[in-house]
Amino acid sequence: MSLDASVKSWVAADARGDFSIHNLPFGIFSTGSGDARAGVRIGDHVVDLQALASDAASQPLTNIHANAALFGKSTLNEFAELGRAVHRGVRTELQSILAANTTHGAILRDNDALKQKVLIPADKVTMHLPMQIGDYTDFYAGYHHAFKVGVLFRGPENALQPNYTHLPVGYHGRSSSIVVSGTPIRRPKGQILTNPTAPVKEPVTSACKRLDYEVELGCFISRSTKMGDSVDVNEAENYVFGYVLLNDWSARDIQAWEYVPLGPFNGKNFGSTISPWIVTPDALEPFRTESLENTTPIQPYLQETQKKNVFDIQLEVGINAEGINNAVLAQTTGKNLLWSFSQMIAHHTLGGCPLRAGDMMGSGTISGTEIRQRGSLLEMTEGGKQDIEVGEGKVRRFIEDGDSVFMRGWCEKDGVRIGFGDCEGTIQPAN
Amino acid sequence: MSLDASVKSWVAADARGDFSIHNLPFGIFSTGSGDARAGVRIGDHVVDLQALASDAASQPLTNIHANAALFGKSTLNEFAELGRAVHRGVRTELQSILAANTTHGAILRDNDALKQKVLIPADKVTMHLPMQIGDYTDFYAGYHHAFKVGVLFRGPENALQPNYTHLPVGYHGRSSSIVVSGTPIRRPKGQILTNPTAPVKEPVTSACKRLDYEVELGCFISRSTKMGDSVDVNEAENYVFGYVLLNDWSARDIQAWEYVPLGPFNGKNFGSTISPWIVTPDALEPFRTESLENTTPIQPYLQETQKKNVFDIQLEVGINAEGINNAVLAQTTGKNLLWSFSQMIAHHTLGGCPLRAGDMMGSGTISGTEIRQRGSLLEMTEGGKQDIEVGEGKVRRFIEDGDSVFMRGWCEKDGVRIGFGDCEGTIQPAN
Repeated sequence: MSLDASVKSWVAADARGDFSIHNLPFGIFSTGSGDARAGVRIGDHVVDLQALASDAASQPLTNIHANAALFGKSTLNEFAELGRAVHRGVRTELQSILAANTTHGAILRDNDALKQKVLIPADKVTMHLPMQIGDYTDFYAGYHHAFKVGVLFRGPENALQPNYTHLPVGYHGRSSSIVVSGTPIRRPKGQILTNPTAPVKEPVTSACKRLDYEVELGCFISRSTKMGDSVDVNEAENYVFGYVLLNDWSARDIQAWEYVPLGPFNGKNFGSTISPWIVTPDALEPFRTESLENTTPIQPYLQETQKKNVFDIQLEVGINAEGINNAVLAQTTGKNLLWSFSQMIAHHTLGGCPLRAGDMMGSGTISGTEIRQRGSLLEMTEGGKQDIEVGEGKVRRFIEDGDSVFMRGWCEKDGVRIGFGDCEGTIQPAN
Repeated sequence: MSLDASVKSWVAADARGDFSIHNLPFGIFSTGSGDARAGVRIGDHVVDLQALASDAASQPLTNIHANAALFGKSTLNEFAELGRAVHRGVRTELQSILAANTTHGAILRDNDALKQKVLIPADKVTMHLPMQIGDYTDFYAGYHHAFKVGVLFRGPENALQPNYTHLPVGYHGRSSSIVVSGTPIRRPKGQILTNPTAPVKEPVTSACKRLDYEVELGCFISRSTKMGDSVDVNEAENYVFGYVLLNDWSARDIQAWEYVPLGPFNGKNFGSTISPWIVTPDALEPFRTESLENTTPIQPYLQETQKKNVFDIQLEVGINAEGINNAVLAQTTGKNLLWSFSQMIAHHTLGGCPLRAGDMMGSGTISGTEIRQRGSLLEMTEGGKQDIEVGEGKVRRFIEDGDSVFMRGWCEKDGVRIGFGDCEGTIQPAN
């Protein structure tokens, strides 16, 4: 479907316009009475795919009707494995019956009994992790973030390591602590240095005092690969199921003490929040754009023929708290990446590391160059040295107990808007 | 069961004595005709736990008989979750019917029909990964390895980072590429520097030229924890299902170029080999010993009341290849750890990172101080600068295509021996 703002749905729109008929993301939801199952978001409602696919009326929708059993599963892993042609088929069939000017109104729009079963108000559902996540890898592809954090941790001379522009640097993350938007996050305890610059290091065990967020995009893998095989960078998009917002919560003081030489560990593994709806590559296709220019000659296995290799996704992060109302802290964009997800996938599998459906990859923090474009407080506050005004006379350097951090992401063009929905987590005091 | 060498089994012993009645490790096996299911190794045979538990004759063995359904699963995850008392019950019941002087001979020894179904020759089974591994964490607790590698990568002044003696340093590994003994490993391709010391770094994409092994112990987690909770170091053993040998294959040239600042990635994620039989903490209990002394005062959450916090496991590594017959390269011991698995578990969960049954933790490479006690070729060859004689006039600096690397591990005391069985992988040429 090309971008045509005149195409609307007969389903009531959601307030932000994230879930127009041009989006139709996949997720896993439950209602009070039912098991977790697959759904697609449209406007203020969720389409119960199992209920739709199980009904004889959906027979003309061949991609949907054939997958009733998979839509009844509590994760999208098996559906993802069916591949992009099937995902596209399901989405196209949904667009055909959800459009205001549908010629298939009999299937759902004018079928009150089925509509009652299939269209569930979004405020009546509980969202779950959309996939069983095997391995989670977090990359570091946000150039401006890597540079700024490098300056803060290692000084300007060593800000970017020599490898940074040659390969998408990444590390293995923790999948057990990835949670869906709305799940509270407990402030971690950890070893921290109360005086990091003292020559003799004397750690204490303490609640984290420098709790931060990181604005990222998450990418869900649809297809498994065999151990020993590599994915060609120009085929890599066929291994992507879709994208979510990702808050890679970070305990800066724990991280700073632990991370040399093997990388971040307890500074990251206490929690990562994702938005529940997986936005498909097809929905994002009209919003392709070029990533940041890399002037370093790169290896052939990373060279893409598609130059518009990232998406022009507007991203914002903010907080709500007592006396702080919807304060947007920063705005950035999906353009601010030096490496595309295709390049990350090609690099990840270069040595034969196998992918599994449901694996998630994070982009790394996405920052612009200006203070209010930075995707973490560490960067905005120059390492915790400057206050950030959050409205009504209040300031933050790091995240406080009770703060609710939200992220939003959307694309807008030619009068069409699609978005990612909520990615929110509230910090509970340390145990 | 205390160590009593006079206790033997009526089942024929295996040649190495790894699987005496004092061991009885758990694993997942299949035969030509059957699905993957749970077994216990005894001598030259595998006990088919599902077949035993499903038979009325096993009714007196209450722990075994109650779990027929779980023993039919293709992983041990759910059985592991039942906790150490149940694992102990099953093992004790097996010892009671497998002992040469059993007073329950009617159940199995003298029951030819059941014996035919339950006792399967070990050379007739295929072994599988024993657990579905959620997350894999690799620690760095082998002090002599960390020191030696630190010298090679960063020089003697910075060999050990200041955090090393304060906390068990670790990083998240890749679970998708953990394979069971006998699975071939493809030599990885990757970005490497042909001239690492040149001021301008010019990587090429190449097959790894510095392929190495690492001798480690793996620890399988039995019990899940809730996100936000921590495990007390003195309770941590109750979260352990058991131990395996672990070869953490390492591509040293890929690793050296990629690992700063976020840690090892493609240098490690192409494959990790484990032995298939999970040796229980009960089997290892008589072989407790003290870990290396840590003179640094450690934080309270890492302080153990049990001072014998590691196991005196003899470890050896070697290769077979054309013209190289069973060449043992190095011998070391499980004593060579600065941190116990209990300390690793306590540290891993300090910030609230949730554990899941089936998670695996690696000890890090276990090396002694002498050249033939080092658990990797990197250490033995001084970073690839010295030949290691492997017999019959042949030498190695790193692992060559076709080399089969084996690891062995066993405990021996008072005439009793238990062991880990095979942990072997053969290197295939790069794609």
